[in-house]
Amino acid sequence: MDRLDQAEALRRMEPPERADRLSRMPPEQARAAFEQLEAPLQEELLAHLRDAQVYRLMEDLDPDDRVRLLGRLPEPVSRAFIARLSPRERRFTHKLLAYPQETAGRIMTPEYLSLEPTLTAAAALERVRREGTEVETINALPVLGPGEQFAGLVMLSDLVMAEGDQVISDLVDVSVPTVRPETDQEQVARLIQVADLLALPVVSASGRLLGLITVDDAMDVLQWEQEEDIARTGAQEPLDRPYFATTLMGLTRARLLWLVLLALAGAVTVQVLNVFEPLLEQAVTLSLFIPLLIGVGGNSGAQSATTVIRAMATGEMNGGHKSQVMFRETRVGLLLGTAVALLAYLPVTLVFSSPLAITVALALVVICTGATFVGAGMPLLANRLGIDPAVVSAPVVTTVVDAGGLLLYFLIARVVMGL
Amino acid sequence: MDRLDQAEALRRMEPPERADRLSRMPPEQARAAFEQLEAPLQEELLAHLRDAQVYRLMEDLDPDDRVRLLGRLPEPVSRAFIARLSPRERRFTHKLLAYPQETAGRIMTPEYLSLEPTLTAAAALERVRREGTEVETINALPVLGPGEQFAGLVMLSDLVMAEGDQVISDLVDVSVPTVRPETDQEQVARLIQVADLLALPVVSASGRLLGLITVDDAMDVLQWEQEEDIARTGAQEPLDRPYFATTLMGLTRARLLWLVLLALAGAVTVQVLNVFEPLLEQAVTLSLFIPLLIGVGGNSGAQSATTVIRAMATGEMNGGHKSQVMFRETRVGLLLGTAVALLAYLPVTLVFSSPLAITVALALVVICTGATFVGAGMPLLANRLGIDPAVVSAPVVTTVVDAGGLLLYFLIARVVMGL
Repeated sequence: MDRLDQAEALRRMEPPERADRLSRMPPEQARAAFEQLEAPLQEELLAHLRDAQVYRLMEDLDPDDRVRLLGRLPEPVSRAFIARLSPRERRFTHKLLAYPQETAGRIMTPEYLSLEPTLTAAAALERVRREGTEVETINALPVLGPGEQFAGLVMLSDLVMAEGDQVISDLVDVSVPTVRPETDQEQVARLIQVADLLALPVVSASGRLLGLITVDDAMDVLQWEQEEDIARTGAQEPLDRPYFATTLMGLTRARLLWLVLLALAGAVTVQVLNVFEPLLEQAVTLSLFIPLLIGVGGNSGAQSATTVIRAMATGEMNGGHKSQVMFRETRVGLLLGTAVALLAYLPVTLVFSSPLAITVALALVVICTGATFVGAGMPLLANRLGIDPAVVSAPVVTTVVDAGGLLLYFLIARVVMGL
Repeated sequence: MDRLDQAEALRRMEPPERADRLSRMPPEQARAAFEQLEAPLQEELLAHLRDAQVYRLMEDLDPDDRVRLLGRLPEPVSRAFIARLSPRERRFTHKLLAYPQETAGRIMTPEYLSLEPTLTAAAALERVRREGTEVETINALPVLGPGEQFAGLVMLSDLVMAEGDQVISDLVDVSVPTVRPETDQEQVARLIQVADLLALPVVSASGRLLGLITVDDAMDVLQWEQEEDIARTGAQEPLDRPYFATTLMGLTRARLLWLVLLALAGAVTVQVLNVFEPLLEQAVTLSLFIPLLIGVGGNSGAQSATTVIRAMATGEMNGGHKSQVMFRETRVGLLLGTAVALLAYLPVTLVFSSPLAITVALALVVICTGATFVGAGMPLLANRLGIDPAVVSAPVVTTVVDAGGLLLYFLIARVVMGL
């Protein structure tokens, strides 16, 4: 049975049985199994284990994993846990907790094994063998100059391959990128991915090394962010447990808020349509195209919003590019709207009437252009207001595009069809 | 200037200048820079570099990176490149190309350094120092039993920390999960992530080791899949270049097909509404709720589809769970529909009329339940037909839910409002 099957077996147990099984594992194995469980299952376990076991587990966790767990517990509970940690681990924990959630500071490990530039490879390896068990990773070893200034990384593999009398300053990779503790965790993960790093150094404003972020933590971050993004584009809150471990009420709760928010957006369209009811009574055929128009508008808005959100997340787009992006997206919207309008004109004029076809075609051009403009602008606006663009964009874009699109459609109809 | 700034500087150059800069770098640095560029930029570079440089670059790339690039080139071009590789690299390339795209076989490296269980740690380290430069990674070393049977992994860090006379069989981690070469690359990446591995072994049906997948390749896979998923949920094709390196026409092309597909879906709703035009002429107020109803339906369908797609991607849901999932999701839909209907009833009955409020409320319950059913079923169906669920679900769910929802709405209206 491999280690994943072990975690899977734990997941399938009832809470008391799970705690019982974990408490009978050897400490190192218990820690490894515990680390692989989802946070809500970890919380449950803490409640079911005996005191001594809980404190042992807390003490043994890597500082970043411990901080992640503590961040989920009620304030008094987490304070009690911290109070009983060894002074060393307590110091680490306080250090990480001082940084905001979802930043580099929260996911870094402050335990690292550093080397001086003048050390020989043989002496460095000797130090690794002596002190390596106390740190989270020895695969990447930071090199520090005077005043703990970060000077680069030495890979353990390079150290092993080096001649014993080579000095660290010849082996160090000085082109490794660094981040500040305030850097967003998703940016950190992407940096580790594009630079193919085993560990990313976190440094202070003055260049002092504060900690290392390891590649496995970066992969976890990518995974969380992906799940969050996908849930949010599917208009719901991410589940914090596996699907089958979530109750029916839990699933419903994760979706209801968004569904109601979006239904309120739909209520605005009811108002707009209500205003134009006399127009609809004169030409009920206008109502036939409502789903088509708001569908195309919503989709082109979503396309634009996801493109911009993505480019912002990859760091490709920053403050300076805003107006350039808005201008590009609006032109793309105009092109798309014109293409869709040309495709729609012929069938509508054949089946219905020429004035209606002109109205629908013009509405498609205007709605697509407007929708890409709003779709591109909303994430930029959200970002400026300090709100997660992925969260706010979908419902706001839908509301604005649906209601605004219908308004424009009826105004165009009035002019073109002379109503 | 760190290595990422170097790649970024290359990206911003015009193609001829970029080729010129690359050709003047030392080979190892050129390879590293080349590897960090997006595939379309790599293709361009091959066209601009001198022959000798191109072949040098091809020979130096890791087998998996080379295969990824060759897979994008026209058949005759890639065949010419392969023909000029050294016999060793040619053999590796053919081996990987034999596996389908997006599988473990395509992203593994067949160059590894293996150890026997009876070797001492000192002798193993000696072998690593002697032969380590020829393989992609020495951070994880596979241990092979008789007949190249995979027996586990030894971490370089554990080897360094071990006493010299310890034997490999005492150091080997036998609980490492393995995959087959046909395993989907996203599943591979997730396995590496949850198991916190530096390398994942790929084995044949008989347990023979075929290659290793390294953590940096797994991170790249997570990234590609994420970009693809996000683009697809935003109803467009993923861009293969950075946003600002994509032309206006390129951006339009990535979106137009989806927009037209979804507009065709919208055309079905025009047909449905056309059939019910006499009903709409009698009660034009019915048309006021069209955007609200199809909005709520589309959103609850999307919620259900993303949940199921996610659970399928994480491997949590497999063939055996299908009917269980459909049943759960349908009940969630019923709960959501009932909640939204209760919220809608009062305002509609106050502003409009009681029969209309009853019609809208009943339609909300029926549409939500139906939409979650279709939303959950479509990814399962797509999977069974061998189509990517993320691609097909959005447009099909939208079409079915929009047209079906309107049909049900009017049927309910006929009965309740006696039209």
